[in-house]
Amino acid sequence: MKLLVINPNISDDVTALIESEALRSASPGTELVVRTAGHGVEYIETRFESLIAAGAVAEIIAEHHGRVDGVVVAAFGDPGMPALKELADVPVIGITEAALCAAALQGHRFSIIAISDRIRPWYLDCVERFGLGGRLASIRSINESLNAIGSVQQDFKETLLALSRQAVTEDGADVVILAGAPLAGLARDLRGQIPVPVVDGISAGIRMAEAVVGLESGPHRAGAFAPPPVKARRGLSENLDAALAAAQSAPAASKN
Amino acid sequence: MKLLVINPNISDDVTALIESEALRSASPGTELVVRTAGHGVEYIETRFESLIAAGAVAEIIAEHHGRVDGVVVAAFGDPGMPALKELADVPVIGITEAALCAAALQGHRFSIIAISDRIRPWYLDCVERFGLGGRLASIRSINESLNAIGSVQQDFKETLLALSRQAVTEDGADVVILAGAPLAGLARDLRGQIPVPVVDGISAGIRMAEAVVGLESGPHRAGAFAPPPVKARRGLSENLDAALAAAQSAPAASKN
Amino acid sequence: MKLLVINPNISDDVTALIESEALRSASPGTELVVRTAGHGVEYIETRFESLIAAGAVAEIIAEHHGRVDGVVVAAFGDPGMPALKELADVPVIGITEAALCAAALQGHRFSIIAISDRIRPWYLDCVERFGLGGRLASIRSINESLNAIGSVQQDFKETLLALSRQAVTEDGADVVILAGAPLAGLARDLRGQIPVPVVDGISAGIRMAEAVVGLESGPHRAGAFAPPPVKARRGLSENLDAALAAAQSAPAASKN
Amino acid sequence: MKLLVINPNISDDVTALIESEALRSASPGTELVVRTAGHGVEYIETRFESLIAAGAVAEIIAEHHGRVDGVVVAAFGDPGMPALKELADVPVIGITEAALCAAALQGHRFSIIAISDRIRPWYLDCVERFGLGGRLASIRSINESLNAIGSVQQDFKETLLALSRQAVTEDGADVVILAGAPLAGLARDLRGQIPVPVVDGISAGIRMAEAVVGLESGPHRAGAFAPPPVKARRGLSENLDAALAAAQSAPAASKN
Amino acid sequence: MKLLVINPNISDDVTALIESEALRSASPGTELVVRTAGHGVEYIETRFESLIAAGAVAEIIAEHHGRVDGVVVAAFGDPGMPALKELADVPVIGITEAALCAAALQGHRFSIIAISDRIRPWYLDCVERFGLGGRLASIRSINESLNAIGSVQQDFKETLLALSRQAVTEDGADVVILAGAPLAGLARDLRGQIPVPVVDGISAGIRMAEAVVGLESGPHRAGAFAPPPVKARRGLSENLDAALAAAQSAPAASKN
Amino acid sequence: MKLLVINPNISDDVTALIESEALRSASPGTELVVRTAGHGVEYIETRFESLIAAGAVAEIIAEHHGRVDGVVVAAFGDPGMPALKELADVPVIGITEAALCAAALQGHRFSIIAISDRIRPWYLDCVERFGLGGRLASIRSINESLNAIGSVQQDFKETLLALSRQAVTEDGADVVILAGAPLAGLARDLRGQIPVPVVDGISAGIRMAEAVVGLESGPHRAGAFAPPPVKARRGLSENLDAALAAAQSAPAASKN
Repeated sequence: MKLLVINPNISDDVTALIESEALRSASPGTELVVRTAGHGVEYIETRFESLIAAGAVAEIIAEHHGRVDGVVVAAFGDPGMPALKELADVPVIGITEAALCAAALQGHRFSIIAISDRIRPWYLDCVERFGLGGRLASIRSINESLNAIGSVQQDFKETLLALSRQAVTEDGADVVILAGAPLAGLARDLRGQIPVPVVDGISAGIRMAEAVVGLESGPHRAGAFAPPPVKARRGLSENLDAALAAAQSAPAASKN
Repeated sequence: MKLLVINPNISDDVTALIESEALRSASPGTELVVRTAGHGVEYIETRFESLIAAGAVAEIIAEHHGRVDGVVVAAFGDPGMPALKELADVPVIGITEAALCAAALQGHRFSIIAISDRIRPWYLDCVERFGLGGRLASIRSINESLNAIGSVQQDFKETLLALSRQAVTEDGADVVILAGAPLAGLARDLRGQIPVPVVDGISAGIRMAEAVVGLESGPHRAGAFAPPPVKARRGLSENLDAALAAAQSAPAASKN
Repeated sequence: MKLLVINPNISDDVTALIESEALRSASPGTELVVRTAGHGVEYIETRFESLIAAGAVAEIIAEHHGRVDGVVVAAFGDPGMPALKELADVPVIGITEAALCAAALQGHRFSIIAISDRIRPWYLDCVERFGLGGRLASIRSINESLNAIGSVQQDFKETLLALSRQAVTEDGADVVILAGAPLAGLARDLRGQIPVPVVDGISAGIRMAEAVVGLESGPHRAGAFAPPPVKARRGLSENLDAALAAAQSAPAASKN
Repeated sequence: MKLLVINPNISDDVTALIESEALRSASPGTELVVRTAGHGVEYIETRFESLIAAGAVAEIIAEHHGRVDGVVVAAFGDPGMPALKELADVPVIGITEAALCAAALQGHRFSIIAISDRIRPWYLDCVERFGLGGRLASIRSINESLNAIGSVQQDFKETLLALSRQAVTEDGADVVILAGAPLAGLARDLRGQIPVPVVDGISAGIRMAEAVVGLESGPHRAGAFAPPPVKARRGLSENLDAALAAAQSAPAASKN
Repeated sequence: MKLLVINPNISDDVTALIESEALRSASPGTELVVRTAGHGVEYIETRFESLIAAGAVAEIIAEHHGRVDGVVVAAFGDPGMPALKELADVPVIGITEAALCAAALQGHRFSIIAISDRIRPWYLDCVERFGLGGRLASIRSINESLNAIGSVQQDFKETLLALSRQAVTEDGADVVILAGAPLAGLARDLRGQIPVPVVDGISAGIRMAEAVVGLESGPHRAGAFAPPPVKARRGLSENLDAALAAAQSAPAASKN
Repeated sequence: MKLLVINPNISDDVTALIESEALRSASPGTELVVRTAGHGVEYIETRFESLIAAGAVAEIIAEHHGRVDGVVVAAFGDPGMPALKELADVPVIGITEAALCAAALQGHRFSIIAISDRIRPWYLDCVERFGLGGRLASIRSINESLNAIGSVQQDFKETLLALSRQAVTEDGADVVILAGAPLAGLARDLRGQIPVPVVDGISAGIRMAEAVVGLESGPHRAGAFAPPPVKARRGLSENLDAALAAAQSAPAASKN
């Protein structure tokens, strides 16, 4: 199984964190192709930054069209989801939706621990859009300035631990999600110190993608995630244009 | 008052429909600047096409940064909303959210009449995301192939009228919304023949934008719609880069 | 365009505040007819007081039947809504629903700043009934006794400013609504001092009514807001009786 | 225990139906005082008619202030609820909320069988406002003209039976509610012919009022249903004015 | 009328509290049969303990099959509900659902006062499952260790009173529910000291069961609460097996 | 990794179906221990049958306490969930929640295809309890009598295919879930004939359990899924008693 793992941001050090944790999480037979966004921002905190990132992710998915078995979009907040699921014939999974499922299968209410206050409304949108808003205990976040995005988990380890514990004791979280690619791998460190299951977004993304790809549920040939109908288009990148053309020429579902 | 009206699609004939209805709807003192997306598809039917359009709209908003009093995003489904509200210091309003408000102020339940079956899940997402899903009576749609996007309202006038009446009698709609820029202006024709108020997306977009711009509520200097925090970015268009830079250098809210 | 603006309470000094802000907000071509409730209480804080006010507003709407282009019910909490929309052939709009729309078009979550603790459950009912409860960040209120209803905005200016800022920083409000006719006009003063858009109920009511009336969406000839079916009635005021009779004799929607 | 049972409409023949079923339902020690609205319409089908009825009911409650142990508002749709609960020191219960509770305690999903199509949106509002919208299987209604409100249950017995059965087999109702005072007593006839529990609004109103009055839970001296704060009022009826004055002079809750 | 009242726990001293309050609450003509769970735990605090209790309650219901007119399941959290309603031809009512109805008929928002922090998620599940989660103001709980389950109401009277008052002043409760059989009867003591109606679970269970049984709504012969279809079963207790057999041989609803 | 897979019913032929599909789905390193309920019914269609099954599943989990890495409860409707998650220190996952996650990661709306009409309310409860009710397109079911539970998928293959296609074309399903252990393995057959991804409950249960177990998120030492507090218990089976004792003596979370 070959998974394309995309960092929707331009930060190579975060890509390195993603890759490390992805490698630790992947099953023996899983091959990983890890890519960094070609354009965008250092890290996503807002709805508009997420929109920019979505476009960059689309380009990378299109570039790898037909050459991977699944895609993991490795930024919390799931930029471009669920729209990007239309673009490929294989599962395209965001790390937030993967983490939400991993949490929901282990408890009833969960909390998300985030790297900045500004990021919270976007995360909340994402949880509500996925449909699990009713199970969200809280989103807690660091409210200090970050030094560098690549060292957040070292710089704020104690803060993140304290936020996680507060989520359990004050907000009623049954599971804690350490959100965001910059925190990739931290869950392994903190588990013994937090009295409930702790979910890492990257690990959840890899594991859940493996599970879903392994199910071989079949492609979308009808419905809202089938390739868009053929129509005039203009000004798209060569890759994107080709991906849309390829998708649209796939055998349509026979009506019955 | 100067309003930038953006057709998020590449179809010039739909831009013409938009412009005509926008001119009919605008108040005397309102100046309109109408633009067509620089890249994208002929008309949006899916979540992914909407994502492409969102990027194209962002470019046009950025290009006009600081030179208009408000922006109307003139495709039903509100591509890029609410993210695009971050990008400008002035109100940025989608025609769907405007039409939903216009409908919600005139009745309790409303129906949306749409140009294709495929478009419905995207519209439903949009209504639910805006928070008024509980007041949606139905989304009804043409389920035949379209000849040309610019002539949908002529080609399917009787069908659209029948769908509107069914929405009232079978679905309990108190108000009918004729959705989509390709239907711009049709509401004026059909009103006498539909026994409830009929809302046109473009008219609603213009009128609601005028109302909100006129309120002079002030800009976002804090919270989720303030300009994104300053951080490294790469590969953005010149206009977008400049718009982000300008927004971020605006005087921040003084903390209290 | 002629708008009937009704103060649902008996307080003439609040009517004066309403009229001043309404005049400041109205577009050049808009004529305002401002009226005070003929019976009721000084200001509405509870569900029952709102019920009394609804009856008083109905009388005034009935009295002006057929002589105005739209009606603004100028008390936050929208007494009698949406029932009063049945009573006239023209748009009848409450200032709360108008303010909610104005806020929802400018951000995602909004807070309401209110003049008393007791008033909050009624306001919450109103937001939930309109269907936007999911976007309410908070309702914050003055919890001191009021000296006089006409001077609340002077007497508590600093408190109202502090509550507004807390709504932004603690509750995540993207937009602040200064609720209640007694606060009419205060938003103009406070805007520079609150770091998000600030919406005034009266202004929003006037502007949104202008927008909706301008859309000329057509009357309700079927559905839940058409005039009630003809049936025996007794003991109603002359005006109300006449208004119901007139509405019921309007040409019914032709069935199809 | 003395219960005041109010027909919110002016139809004496419906009052007779209410009284008969109320007498059949009441426990041995319960005394009933049955009253008809002093003004209003023949029967309520719309939100506005319900608003008129609410005012009429308020007058009767005020007239009996301090002289009964509980009040039953005997029109489906619960005109004036929950506002009317503020007006008395004793439980004030609508037959809809009583029927919803009786149904919810006997099954999971319930359907409402109503006497006219027009009445459905108002009933739906009522169920949603009470908070049990998620358990509503359907509202089905007679869609023919009524001959006389007092003979609906005879004239449409077969239709009502068919609608009830459809609610079970097609909509998944676990319990059927025969809605509206004009159907008072019909449930006794139809029970054997409908394969799920059948709830009569009037019976449920009487039984639930007896249960709640019997609990002696104590009055509202604080919170949203305490009497409204003292303030200037004008133009109210003598009874209403006296009831408000009496309520407001009750010993306030001691703060702690 | 004969009511079977079941303590789903093995604690005889709590059964005594239940019986005392049930006797105080029951109407003259009501006969009570009070039973204690044959197996299980001392008191239920968790979802799993509730599952164990549900099985124990099923045994007692089965044992009394056909010999009572109604059943009250006397533990807050309603173990086994709504499944247990399938098992008998008579109303089976939990004290939580009864208390929620009693509260919802007396105010809009209610709070639950509970005996331990651990118990809160289970109670919250129960309120949400019943469908009234939108009206829950708060669940407040004792967060100290209990000495003995039979003396909780004496040992923590002041704490429970303080929690009740906080629910009113801080959480906006219109009604307070004292939850859990160990608090049976306490509401009678505290009423004068809490400024809103106070509901006791046991009293509410008895009164609501009397009301519902008195309605004689008829049995479930179709739908989700009819007896389960006949099929092979194995290893059930003699009583349970007999009860299922008896239920399944009841005359099925005649299809129409 | 060793997974305990429990058929909550007494039907050995369904256990065989479960085991076959589980073996086809499991990853190379996964060892399966498959068990059949010791008591209960042939197959679960109702809430009460599910309650019986929950008790039987608890016994098997208790019996294997400490000897497996994860548990799959292999009946659609997830009997005993989420309560059973308290009982073990390892993930306990129902096939419904697993299938819902697998579906939700592949599309937005999903439908469930079920083996009998009676089963639908229970399934609906389950989806709503998990929190994804807002994404459910429909539950469609066979409405004919079953010959034998072990041959349902052969006997009704065409019906199940037709129901699946209707879910896509009429209900808007993006993904179809073939529900229930009796349909285990059928998805592999039907995939090419249904134009959207098709999810099998058993496969999803195995794959999702592998993914979650593989995450090693850590146990519940606090919160709602920690082992129940120590207290008197009576009459439990030896295994269950031992499992509770073992769980409760695990090192508690250190408070901070």
